[in-house]
Amino acid sequence: MSIERYDIVIVGAGPVGLLLSTCLARWGYKIKHIDMRPVPTVTGRADGIQPRSLDLLRNMGLKRAIMANEPAKVYEVAFWDPSDKSKGIHRTGTWASCPKFIDARYPFTTLLHQGLIERVFIADLEQHGVKIQRPWRITGFSSDGVDKQYPVEVNLAHVDGDEQETVRAKYLFSGEGARSFVREQLKVGITHKDPIAHVWGVMDGVVRTNFPDIKMKCTIHSDAGSIMVIPREANMVRLYIQVASSTDPDWDPRKTATTEQVQETAKKILAPYWIEWDRIEWYSVYPIGQGIADRYTLDERVFMGGDCCHTHSPKAGQGMNTAFLDAQNLAWKIHHVESGFADRSILKSYESERKLIAENLLNFDAQYAKLFSQRQPSAGEVGGASKHVTGEESEKEVEENEFIKMFKASCEFTSGYGVAYNENIFNWSDAHPAKSSLFLSQKAGSTTQRPGRILSPATVTRVADANVVHLEQEIPLNGSYRIYLFAGKPLVTKKAVNDFAANLKKKGSFFSSYTRPDVDQVSYHERHNPHSLFFTINTIFNAKRPDIEVRTLLPELLARYFDHVYADDIWDQRVPNASAAAHAKMGLSEDEGGVVIVRPDGYVGCAVKLVEGSGTVDALNEYFASFCTKSFGGERPQL
Amino acid sequence: MSIERYDIVIVGAGPVGLLLSTCLARWGYKIKHIDMRPVPTVTGRADGIQPRSLDLLRNMGLKRAIMANEPAKVYEVAFWDPSDKSKGIHRTGTWASCPKFIDARYPFTTLLHQGLIERVFIADLEQHGVKIQRPWRITGFSSDGVDKQYPVEVNLAHVDGDEQETVRAKYLFSGEGARSFVREQLKVGITHKDPIAHVWGVMDGVVRTNFPDIKMKCTIHSDAGSIMVIPREANMVRLYIQVASSTDPDWDPRKTATTEQVQETAKKILAPYWIEWDRIEWYSVYPIGQGIADRYTLDERVFMGGDCCHTHSPKAGQGMNTAFLDAQNLAWKIHHVESGFADRSILKSYESERKLIAENLLNFDAQYAKLFSQRQPSAGEVGGASKHVTGEESEKEVEENEFIKMFKASCEFTSGYGVAYNENIFNWSDAHPAKSSLFLSQKAGSTTQRPGRILSPATVTRVADANVVHLEQEIPLNGSYRIYLFAGKPLVTKKAVNDFAANLKKKGSFFSSYTRPDVDQVSYHERHNPHSLFFTINTIFNAKRPDIEVRTLLPELLARYFDHVYADDIWDQRVPNASAAAHAKMGLSEDEGGVVIVRPDGYVGCAVKLVEGSGTVDALNEYFASFCTKSFGGERPQL
Repeated sequence: MSIERYDIVIVGAGPVGLLLSTCLARWGYKIKHIDMRPVPTVTGRADGIQPRSLDLLRNMGLKRAIMANEPAKVYEVAFWDPSDKSKGIHRTGTWASCPKFIDARYPFTTLLHQGLIERVFIADLEQHGVKIQRPWRITGFSSDGVDKQYPVEVNLAHVDGDEQETVRAKYLFSGEGARSFVREQLKVGITHKDPIAHVWGVMDGVVRTNFPDIKMKCTIHSDAGSIMVIPREANMVRLYIQVASSTDPDWDPRKTATTEQVQETAKKILAPYWIEWDRIEWYSVYPIGQGIADRYTLDERVFMGGDCCHTHSPKAGQGMNTAFLDAQNLAWKIHHVESGFADRSILKSYESERKLIAENLLNFDAQYAKLFSQRQPSAGEVGGASKHVTGEESEKEVEENEFIKMFKASCEFTSGYGVAYNENIFNWSDAHPAKSSLFLSQKAGSTTQRPGRILSPATVTRVADANVVHLEQEIPLNGSYRIYLFAGKPLVTKKAVNDFAANLKKKGSFFSSYTRPDVDQVSYHERHNPHSLFFTINTIFNAKRPDIEVRTLLPELLARYFDHVYADDIWDQRVPNASAAAHAKMGLSEDEGGVVIVRPDGYVGCAVKLVEGSGTVDALNEYFASFCTKSFGGERPQL
Repeated sequence: MSIERYDIVIVGAGPVGLLLSTCLARWGYKIKHIDMRPVPTVTGRADGIQPRSLDLLRNMGLKRAIMANEPAKVYEVAFWDPSDKSKGIHRTGTWASCPKFIDARYPFTTLLHQGLIERVFIADLEQHGVKIQRPWRITGFSSDGVDKQYPVEVNLAHVDGDEQETVRAKYLFSGEGARSFVREQLKVGITHKDPIAHVWGVMDGVVRTNFPDIKMKCTIHSDAGSIMVIPREANMVRLYIQVASSTDPDWDPRKTATTEQVQETAKKILAPYWIEWDRIEWYSVYPIGQGIADRYTLDERVFMGGDCCHTHSPKAGQGMNTAFLDAQNLAWKIHHVESGFADRSILKSYESERKLIAENLLNFDAQYAKLFSQRQPSAGEVGGASKHVTGEESEKEVEENEFIKMFKASCEFTSGYGVAYNENIFNWSDAHPAKSSLFLSQKAGSTTQRPGRILSPATVTRVADANVVHLEQEIPLNGSYRIYLFAGKPLVTKKAVNDFAANLKKKGSFFSSYTRPDVDQVSYHERHNPHSLFFTINTIFNAKRPDIEVRTLLPELLARYFDHVYADDIWDQRVPNASAAAHAKMGLSEDEGGVVIVRPDGYVGCAVKLVEGSGTVDALNEYFASFCTKSFGGERPQL
């Protein structure tokens, strides 16, 4: 019997495995996806979708299905502390969960139980022919290279043990969670950054109470202990209670507490307010220590992601979000290697990019834990912080202290917008092998966009149908690089735009080197990838929509992206005096424009001046040559 | 065998029947709903959801399911006319389909085929236990009053004729469409306002073309004829072609045209652009004359609505929208009568309110037809109009000519926001029996809200969870009157707010007279109707959210609406200098507030000054006494 071959075997159908599977299934890969659990998550577990993750889910076309579950939305966080005279707790202050200084489309956290989120992915997977095989587990694997194309052998078994299967794959991915068979087999160690561990009690339920902030996210300190309140869908509320800490004199990681004990403690903490439970949906007590895997892969064939690689406290709602972004990061890189676009070496950047984020997360988590466990912000400090972030106050603000700085930094991090990948082959910097003098940089003030950071959101008018759209969402998560041609004023840039197109078209450019093999048979209705599966081009003019005649103004190559031509004619409160708000937000000349290259995951790759002649495309040839499988423009730049 | 009894028999499962059925099913009525067709609409028919209708669908919780079908959205309309030198057509201008001077949440038309819309309603109905009985038709009825409670006997039969059923009902509703058995039996005549009739060809399909506005709504005049282009979901486009007109010398209402003929005509009209069809989804030729039923009901037991009562050209996309609003208007009135809240005489207002709108629609339709069939706007006029409506130009505008005025008036009408019911018992005016001097009026400049018009939208912050919400959507379409207590500044209105609550609470007030019989057993979790099934109270303060302590600031009665307390702290571009934008948009004092009473369908009933003492509630007692079943405040005002 011949062994079945897959592009990838994915173990674990939690957030990280499902997002990876969903991307790869849409891009046509053959997937074996297993999970040990007989059914998706029924109750409890992760529940917080941060603003940046919601952008991602929308980019995948899944946001509407998520929102159909009517999740709770957290816009503000309230802090409660013991009052002076032992009369129980009082509110010290509140602040925005995603303040205005962060330019977010959705400035709130979406709270929904993990099972409902998993089901959205599973429904999408089924539409693409992938069914999770349950309850199955991995029993062994070897990256033996016996078959060069499918170098990994994987042994799978029904959890009952009465069925086995051996398959070969190009890749194996473990999204198994904190207890990972794959990680153990690879003997990859876990480094504990913060030696402090905690036992947490988590309780989801429907309550009655006169506590006024029960529908807000709250951190409550009292003489009777501390608690975190998180509103949930379906009128539920989640309470996190710290049951034990390794700093306790009688520390016991197996310490537990009954629901009744937790309820009693909650009642004491919330005094003078009362609280009663109508029902409890889920209750669990579990120890959590901070940990980070030393490696995410050993050979770029067997990968790990999600909780398998990083564990931390649940308080900031980061687990699922970090898992999503792990998976997204890996998905397009595997795709670019397997489709022949990028050099296999790019797979190393999965670990280097994502491990950095996990380290930041753990550092943040440790600071956050310290902040909320040991220090109670005074009303004055909180007032200062929230004043600052509303952005509606004059410049005469209270001086920022360490606490406010930490607060601001954490808001950006917890929202997901603080993610900043270091400079590397994808994220251009002075150190990048591409040396053209036309690259723009934040440091030099020639653009606001920083490579390795998410593209700024901008609202524009689509020329084809006059729809007001979100520019950053116009290209779905389709594995393509996103070329944003900010074309300034048509009369100013006419030659530069024509030259840009002519040089893209030239044989040997990064663009034409990856022309679709079926380019002559591409459907008239193909909107995103008429020329290449790896690039979609958006053109944004500083002009009114009715003045943009796409087929007159743009050379044929660019006009082919008819549904991706935009008028930068929507006023934006953040740049109130700009005549072309999207240009202004990108920090580009409103007259002369510029080109921004965005990675398939929405992070900025580089920005280049738009000039007459071949310079702009030359610079991009250099940029792409640093990781693509072909050399461009006649000569490959020195690496 | 005893005869089955229903609250209502609804004939026809098109937009009007389905919306009525959906409302009444949610409010607990027993419904028999039949339709002659074996299945919902498969292709073609109506497809335009106007901005106001989208508000309504959202208020019913159905918008997300509609949008999940990825409808096309029309933001602008383009006008094409013959060019001077017979070189085919050229664009004369474009303008907003719902310009900025209209304060719309969703300033676009949503295009989706009727069958997909019907399915959204049908799914909702099934959740409430109503299944459309198909294919069944009505064969007879009599409002014989033999049974006083169920005065209407209705005979139904399977379309094959092999099954019959006779039932009794409180009401019979015909949503049968233009050919109505019920209307014929009632001998209700049709009045033809505009004697001109047309034969229309309608074609839905997927096309390839270089015509640049194929994804916009377009009106195209050419020497070869006229055509209307409407984009659709799933990359389709609908073309309306006028095949014949009763003004033609050879007028024949049975004139037809084949798909090939229409395609050939379209090609000629669109020259110099080319167009080809990939596939045709639907094609139909049908004659349409303007007509309006003389009566919508004879006895307030047998009602009609939708196309059954008004037919007109399909060009402005009004049919389904008018049908929705017919149904919504009737639904809550039947509910208020059957639940004992309002006097049976209010049912007369269904015809008086909705027939007026149909008359406006037909007048508009005739003007519209004239405008687009006979007069071709010059580029200058169009420029003036679109300049005006963007609202971004200085005051120095071109003087408005008749054409621009007609354009502005029609935009408001076609968006659905132009609907203005006349003064009557619901829509307060100087002529209303309620004579308190505290009523505010648009005429006197004491409010911007006009009774009989939709409440202005306003964005506020919900105090309970800090969510930024749309105030006009906060109460679902639940059959309740919406009491908006704009409470101004807490320190200024403290006594007035307390007095308002105390007088609501008083025995014999309009509010306490309709206390729920189960008021002592109402769930803690009831958000909208804790005291009465007929009222929900919103309180909006001119204060920052964190400064609003609901249970301290509000008396117990108002604090019970904990999820309906708001901070008027969101900046609004339309009233940029207001400190409390929602107050300002309502034209109320930002310090002293005011009370706005909104009918269950979202139209303003009246506005009253908020004063200390009993005056505010006294005025409302007078207002409600004019149509409620009880008298209030000790004495019933003279009618």
